[in-house]
Amino acid sequence: MSERPRVTIWNEYRCEREREDVAAVYPNGIHAPIARYLRDHGLEVRVATFDDPEHGLTVEILEQSDVLIWWGYTVHNEVSDDIVERVHRRILEGMGFIALHSAHYSRIFRKLMGTSCSLNWRDVSEKERVWVVAPGHPIAEGLGEYFEIPHEEMYGEPADIPAPDALVFVSWFSGGDIFRSGCCYQRGRGKVFYFRPGDQVYPTYYQEEVLKVIYNAVRWAAPVEIAPILSRERLQPLENIET
Amino acid sequence: MSERPRVTIWNEYRCEREREDVAAVYPNGIHAPIARYLRDHGLEVRVATFDDPEHGLTVEILEQSDVLIWWGYTVHNEVSDDIVERVHRRILEGMGFIALHSAHYSRIFRKLMGTSCSLNWRDVSEKERVWVVAPGHPIAEGLGEYFEIPHEEMYGEPADIPAPDALVFVSWFSGGDIFRSGCCYQRGRGKVFYFRPGDQVYPTYYQEEVLKVIYNAVRWAAPVEIAPILSRERLQPLENIET
Amino acid sequence: MSERPRVTIWNEYRCEREREDVAAVYPNGIHAPIARYLRDHGLEVRVATFDDPEHGLTVEILEQSDVLIWWGYTVHNEVSDDIVERVHRRILEGMGFIALHSAHYSRIFRKLMGTSCSLNWRDVSEKERVWVVAPGHPIAEGLGEYFEIPHEEMYGEPADIPAPDALVFVSWFSGGDIFRSGCCYQRGRGKVFYFRPGDQVYPTYYQEEVLKVIYNAVRWAAPVEIAPILSRERLQPLENIET
Amino acid sequence: MSERPRVTIWNEYRCEREREDVAAVYPNGIHAPIARYLRDHGLEVRVATFDDPEHGLTVEILEQSDVLIWWGYTVHNEVSDDIVERVHRRILEGMGFIALHSAHYSRIFRKLMGTSCSLNWRDVSEKERVWVVAPGHPIAEGLGEYFEIPHEEMYGEPADIPAPDALVFVSWFSGGDIFRSGCCYQRGRGKVFYFRPGDQVYPTYYQEEVLKVIYNAVRWAAPVEIAPILSRERLQPLENIET
Repeated sequence: MSERPRVTIWNEYRCEREREDVAAVYPNGIHAPIARYLRDHGLEVRVATFDDPEHGLTVEILEQSDVLIWWGYTVHNEVSDDIVERVHRRILEGMGFIALHSAHYSRIFRKLMGTSCSLNWRDVSEKERVWVVAPGHPIAEGLGEYFEIPHEEMYGEPADIPAPDALVFVSWFSGGDIFRSGCCYQRGRGKVFYFRPGDQVYPTYYQEEVLKVIYNAVRWAAPVEIAPILSRERLQPLENIET
Repeated sequence: MSERPRVTIWNEYRCEREREDVAAVYPNGIHAPIARYLRDHGLEVRVATFDDPEHGLTVEILEQSDVLIWWGYTVHNEVSDDIVERVHRRILEGMGFIALHSAHYSRIFRKLMGTSCSLNWRDVSEKERVWVVAPGHPIAEGLGEYFEIPHEEMYGEPADIPAPDALVFVSWFSGGDIFRSGCCYQRGRGKVFYFRPGDQVYPTYYQEEVLKVIYNAVRWAAPVEIAPILSRERLQPLENIET
Repeated sequence: MSERPRVTIWNEYRCEREREDVAAVYPNGIHAPIARYLRDHGLEVRVATFDDPEHGLTVEILEQSDVLIWWGYTVHNEVSDDIVERVHRRILEGMGFIALHSAHYSRIFRKLMGTSCSLNWRDVSEKERVWVVAPGHPIAEGLGEYFEIPHEEMYGEPADIPAPDALVFVSWFSGGDIFRSGCCYQRGRGKVFYFRPGDQVYPTYYQEEVLKVIYNAVRWAAPVEIAPILSRERLQPLENIET
Repeated sequence: MSERPRVTIWNEYRCEREREDVAAVYPNGIHAPIARYLRDHGLEVRVATFDDPEHGLTVEILEQSDVLIWWGYTVHNEVSDDIVERVHRRILEGMGFIALHSAHYSRIFRKLMGTSCSLNWRDVSEKERVWVVAPGHPIAEGLGEYFEIPHEEMYGEPADIPAPDALVFVSWFSGGDIFRSGCCYQRGRGKVFYFRPGDQVYPTYYQEEVLKVIYNAVRWAAPVEIAPILSRERLQPLENIET
């Protein structure tokens, strides 16, 4: 496992520049506090945004990324086919992928899941309590039994996602809903983690526990070294066959 | 799959006879409304209790049971070794097993799980909202997105159980907790379902949705017909081996 | 669960009409022996093929299908976008989907899986022995510990598929490979089963065990009745929120 | 995650001292080549055996063990109740546990699984080919698509184990069987890995790939830091309840 994974944070970086309420919370972008935390903890971090050439996701940048973090909301359907295909291919090759909050509706996440990824939602600034249901999982490392986010948008079940390979967190909302908010998947050789919190109008990404989860997820999702597949057609049997 | 599974409901049947508050809710035993509902829906139902000879779980009765439902609380550790072994063996052979509420701490359920089955709890008569997180699962058949139980004891995470093969329900509690309240497991050839609701002082087992879940679980857990294993030592290879 | 699921078998139906070696084995199409078996066992069966209008998969036909079986090979990439979307939507709504053999590379299966679905292969007419690794699973009902297919194409691991929700069969090949040949997935409200055997030049779909697996899979994949989702935006909390 | 996990290898260490054929292969015990490899790769390793006081598994030693590796065969049922309970408790607290080969029948493994752990077997010195079916899993790190063990005892399906949380390896045997030979489970806060190869009369534990898998499994199974549970009864709700 890579000792020092190289992380690329992809942020659409639109609402922070277009909406005052969001700019007030994230003046340098939603990616800024995440990037700072990961760098402070020794990771190599790069930022890419929707308005960069090729959305900032060139072949070179993806090849140099061990883990890609994705935050998107308003431009999901403007991300080009080519980039979706390119990111998908790179995940199947082994790059880790962490989808944050509204990234559940991104084209790349829906492509990875094979479902609609629809869910219930409500934005009335309610309390979210994130419970750890897999206390031995590396993504829960260093947490207590739960942590609270004072104000958040609600995402509720039933969410149209495949059953996760491992369910790490379940959220309780004061409005009466629950949500599977930390979900692990394997796709090809790449590890995928969905993490629910992080609506743009709340200071969620300044909260220590939330940042710790993202850090843990990066460590967990970093690729393992594995032999490449040279050929798929195996004309020569591995054993002598009596025919 | 058996078209008309034979069900045995095991109830310790103690608190209903010893405590007035419980007797007021379940004058004929916790098993009574469950048995009535299952019979009304065409199943063959038998009742067994702790104080019956061999706790009501003779070899003959178990052999004639396709699915065993278990409600226990105060006498968990008085259930004899022999009966625990006998029930365990029968489940591995294919009998379905449905553990209700406090049965999480029964010897047979802990033996099946391999963990302590500990959990958090609180009994302040709070509201439970049971959310369906696997809408296509047969145990959720006929339900809406959720159902509510007005007053219940709380069971909370982290619960020390193995990750279920399928997670069907997650409960929201008004006191701030969540719980994985519908969990499917395969053990040997037997299907195991844990269903959380049903503290003895609340009329939970008169509620239509709760009864429907138990009915669905019986249908799901009924054994499938499968060839017996004749011998475990296979001296004769299935193929010629060049040695 | 539907007592008498309505099945549609989709077969591209090309190689049987274009290649003598295939026509010799399946003169009336690969779908013919499957349709006959399912009908003989009481199911309602319809056949649709690639060259039918809308590939035989009109909105009406899909709405009347509880389970769709898919065999395809040479025309995968000619199946139109619209039909792929339509079938996908219908599966998420609850229709069961059974992908046979080379359907692993169909557009609809890859869309459901979110991976490349690549695998190793070799066609030298070797022996396949299909082992039951989940003896209590309904899809294994009535089988012994294994069954053999005397001559088949080989599909080998590593296959680029998500870890199945349940793994029912693993195949042994005389040439030295193994394969996860019976894989269950949930996608939306629909159940998906992949079953490996069935290359067009071998009489695999005349074999009793293979037909029995397909029949069992249809029963397993038939939709459960579940309430529709009326709205995804839930402005009104289910609980009073102190804000 | 612990950067340098402390490993205890438990070996019953009987057949190496009692049988010439085994002594010829493992003159210093089956544990010897495993211990050497793990030490050479920077791990801290201790050895404990059945004939040590308390089977070498004192409270102190277990507390100082991050991961326990277990090889046993002839004395399974002589391991005392106390030690089985003690090891079990320690695993639920977070200690990793790696069960090798015939340890599938050890009391501790069966207790963790909740099933009989029976399987088919045959010892005719056949070839085993271990296939990687989860190429992105940390336990498969550094391996190719498969590796071969020239001579081994066969273990075959159906094995009576719970469906693993992750299936990493499947073995092909020249005699015609297959086996799920690398299985991951979570029990409490502890990670459990079963690895099939390693019959006492074959030099399996000198083989690089086998040792690499054990090393990878130790890294994977090392405990994550997690807050202790202080109380299970939560009289005080986390939220104000309107009652």
